[in-house]
Amino acid sequence: MATAAVNMEGTGAADAMPGPFVATLVRLIRAQDSYGAWEGKADTELLAPFIVTKEQRRQMPMMADPDPDVLARLELFYNAISLSLERETGHVASPMMKMHHEGFGRVVLTMGKLVVLSKHLRDVHRFGFENIIKLEAEGQKLVDAGVDTYKTYQHVAEA
Amino acid sequence: MATAAVNMEGTGAADAMPGPFVATLVRLIRAQDSYGAWEGKADTELLAPFIVTKEQRRQMPMMADPDPDVLARLELFYNAISLSLERETGHVASPMMKMHHEGFGRVVLTMGKLVVLSKHLRDVHRFGFENIIKLEAEGQKLVDAGVDTYKTYQHVAEA
Repeated sequence: MATAAVNMEGTGAADAMPGPFVATLVRLIRAQDSYGAWEGKADTELLAPFIVTKEQRRQMPMMADPDPDVLARLELFYNAISLSLERETGHVASPMMKMHHEGFGRVVLTMGKLVVLSKHLRDVHRFGFENIIKLEAEGQKLVDAGVDTYKTYQHVAEA
Repeated sequence: MATAAVNMEGTGAADAMPGPFVATLVRLIRAQDSYGAWEGKADTELLAPFIVTKEQRRQMPMMADPDPDVLARLELFYNAISLSLERETGHVASPMMKMHHEGFGRVVLTMGKLVVLSKHLRDVHRFGFENIIKLEAEGQKLVDAGVDTYKTYQHVAEA
């Protein structure tokens, strides 16, 4: 999966990041590279495992437990949401993810006493996005919703 | 552990429940008894594993991973907090517990967009209470704090 070609359809240049969410995600991925093994890799190569085309999705079996790599990517995705929320609001958003080994679960992001994001997850075997543009759009949508919640209940986030 | 004698010091009668929190906990424990194996057991017998005296605590090693039974009791304890909160506020409090296998972790109880309880857990190997009175007091203290938070931010819990 790690060597799969990225579906760059609609992204223009091979290394142009489509927006701030994906840029944050890439920074998080690179932060895990303690041994410098990925230094020579392009951002798009690092993002490749997040891209799952419709055809790939159809071919994915849902019978077994999800791959630990999928769970790690899911965790990275929600950590990138947390980090983006922190950048936009100035408050730490702490993520908590609990997955059943069969591939369903829940993720909650809290700021003080405020739940800025709560999502039930299903079928994480197939976690991925059609292309990088979609990854940016989906990520940024969650960040924007979180920022809205923060703005509405700012006093609770700071409690 | 399951057959250990309960430290009833200060509880008076052998089967008197010291308060509503412990009563809720007992109901939850009995709800797990699908085969009726515990029907003949007294409440105090079911609560026995929750009681850890100072001496027992000192003898508990912290080297290995905590027993799955301890984690199950921890989950029951916080589920009883949830249920008590629901009874007192009329809103579902949904618990989310995430434990590292070495015995530390975090538990969060949410109501709508409100975090009614958030606690970092450590050394859960030794999870337990000196006696039933203490179990009631500690549980009820958390319930009361949650009810206070709910009353302060009621509009967030209902969001």
